[in-house]
Amino acid sequence: MAKRVHNFYAGPATLPLTVLERARDEILDFAGTGMSVMEISHRSKEYDRVHQESMALVKELMGLKDDRKVMWLQGGASTQFYQVPLNLQVPGKKAQYVNTGAWSKKAIKEARFYGDVEVVASSEDKNFSYIPQGVEFSPDAAFAHITGNNTIFGTEWHYMPKVPDEVPLVADLSSNLMDKVEDFNRYSVIYAGAQKNLGPAGVTLVVVREDLLKRVPENTPTMQKWSTQADKDSLFNTGPCWAIYICKLSLEYLKEMGGVQAVEARNREKAKLLYDVIDSSGGFYRGHAREDSRSLMNVTFNLPTPELEAKCVEEGKAEDLIGLKGHRSVGGMRASIYNAMSIEGVRILTEFLKDFQERNQ
Amino acid sequence: MAKRVHNFYAGPATLPLTVLERARDEILDFAGTGMSVMEISHRSKEYDRVHQESMALVKELMGLKDDRKVMWLQGGASTQFYQVPLNLQVPGKKAQYVNTGAWSKKAIKEARFYGDVEVVASSEDKNFSYIPQGVEFSPDAAFAHITGNNTIFGTEWHYMPKVPDEVPLVADLSSNLMDKVEDFNRYSVIYAGAQKNLGPAGVTLVVVREDLLKRVPENTPTMQKWSTQADKDSLFNTGPCWAIYICKLSLEYLKEMGGVQAVEARNREKAKLLYDVIDSSGGFYRGHAREDSRSLMNVTFNLPTPELEAKCVEEGKAEDLIGLKGHRSVGGMRASIYNAMSIEGVRILTEFLKDFQERNQ
Repeated sequence: MAKRVHNFYAGPATLPLTVLERARDEILDFAGTGMSVMEISHRSKEYDRVHQESMALVKELMGLKDDRKVMWLQGGASTQFYQVPLNLQVPGKKAQYVNTGAWSKKAIKEARFYGDVEVVASSEDKNFSYIPQGVEFSPDAAFAHITGNNTIFGTEWHYMPKVPDEVPLVADLSSNLMDKVEDFNRYSVIYAGAQKNLGPAGVTLVVVREDLLKRVPENTPTMQKWSTQADKDSLFNTGPCWAIYICKLSLEYLKEMGGVQAVEARNREKAKLLYDVIDSSGGFYRGHAREDSRSLMNVTFNLPTPELEAKCVEEGKAEDLIGLKGHRSVGGMRASIYNAMSIEGVRILTEFLKDFQERNQ
Repeated sequence: MAKRVHNFYAGPATLPLTVLERARDEILDFAGTGMSVMEISHRSKEYDRVHQESMALVKELMGLKDDRKVMWLQGGASTQFYQVPLNLQVPGKKAQYVNTGAWSKKAIKEARFYGDVEVVASSEDKNFSYIPQGVEFSPDAAFAHITGNNTIFGTEWHYMPKVPDEVPLVADLSSNLMDKVEDFNRYSVIYAGAQKNLGPAGVTLVVVREDLLKRVPENTPTMQKWSTQADKDSLFNTGPCWAIYICKLSLEYLKEMGGVQAVEARNREKAKLLYDVIDSSGGFYRGHAREDSRSLMNVTFNLPTPELEAKCVEEGKAEDLIGLKGHRSVGGMRASIYNAMSIEGVRILTEFLKDFQERNQ
């Protein structure tokens, strides 16, 4: 039997074991074709079935309306940082962003290439430890942009900002896609790198309300326009077939477990287990995020000293608890517990943390 | 044992069986980590070893000089069609292209977004059945561009065009990368989607002479600039780790078999087997490409009637010879016999073709 560890990496991140086993079992011979998914033509009927099903599963699980186009693109969220403003710009109008950390900042930087950007709210004053509350966007904005979750600081939006009907709301959900029930149709554009909640790195999910595909300036290179892939069901050119196939298996796994509602219940249980350890540690573990902004996906915390933090990461590793080192902007520790992480894995981590505190207090 | 067929698809295309077996064996537990390559952090030392080795293997197998930067990018050659002119433009200078078919045309279309383009030679007059001979580029060009091989028409460059020293020569080698020994340093930029000669779809190899990374206009979004990934060894953001890993295994396979020299010998033997069947068929099989321009990678040919062509494709399929239907622009049949295709596979195809002729003449 293959060795498996408890993987708390912030991304690429753990995948459901059944998904990996299925991929292994058919890696030489997919659907009786005698070929790997990696070898088969993207125009073949066997691959096309995977492709169409993967997009249908996204629509079904997220409850998306018919006017939403699901696309599988390449280049990560970093590429969407410029494709969003390029495709949504309106001459003379500002783009409005909320700055909740490193990823928002990168998105804002790229938006400035396409016109004026206004930052309507920011949590930079307290090292991004919270999500600004009561955020409102103006009716004269070209579009409004939020980052659903911040992996580095461990914060997550738990409410919908106020957005005028005529302003498209854009969300980067790379690290919290489908982690909880939301009205996904409230977002006019959603983008998400797959490597946290969906599949392997190398594919980006982009969902766009179809009327917005017409905003892009005519004089734009083909591959920079969303409409190019939207018009061809993401088969304008050869896409990342293997990554899409793994996403499809992961989406099936999500559906079998009961969809977003079921995964939310499990995510809340996992997060509670960890935040309870922090809150009942008498200050030994100190959470970075403010309580109302705590992420269900990335639990960030510090210990009394950097030495203890390093020791905790090392001892965790020895117990097959992997990827617990915090990002340098916050230090300390971070447990990333995305959709595919089991309760069992989190329970083992909490036991370890309680034990570590006892031994080191 | 898994069923395996003879895969003549134009791309995604057949991979070495040993590569797939190795990927299968470690898909749950890579390098003793207890994680899949798809699950492990792109910043982990285990993945970084794969990443660095993959780039070193490209340099070694292609004999690239120290001033060449190897990058793993996303978005396919279609994305490079615009990134090449964007990154290499020189105000006031024209880009010069040779038009040898569908892929050249797409490249030319995108180049026009960044300035004047001059097509210095074309084979459109005869449905792209040949590579123009004696091509020369001018000293006042910003850069010169060729498409090394055309998958649709089955043509390939077998000589180096004349390029003034001061003009960077750019080659799209998506479908003939490392299929024969060449002085790869004669190209200042090489790009290639991986899904034919290198690995799975979802990663693009880009090799750039380092001094050219400075040409890009300052006011360019981050992910459109080659320098962004060049400066970070293609780890600016999360890359397509699995696809890079499979490329690395394929490159190791190529090295073990004796490098580009050995693969060229095998490619020439495979191509000769097929072209000999065509040439000795007394006109039953008619090759599309002119003899001096025949591709080592894609053998395109017609039969006396469309009905016979359809029958041949169908009967081939019944014998596990897959992907033989020609592209609609040429019709007929196409056997794609990339680096990973075995001589045995091609031999079975030639026997089938000879037998089919006997039964249907």
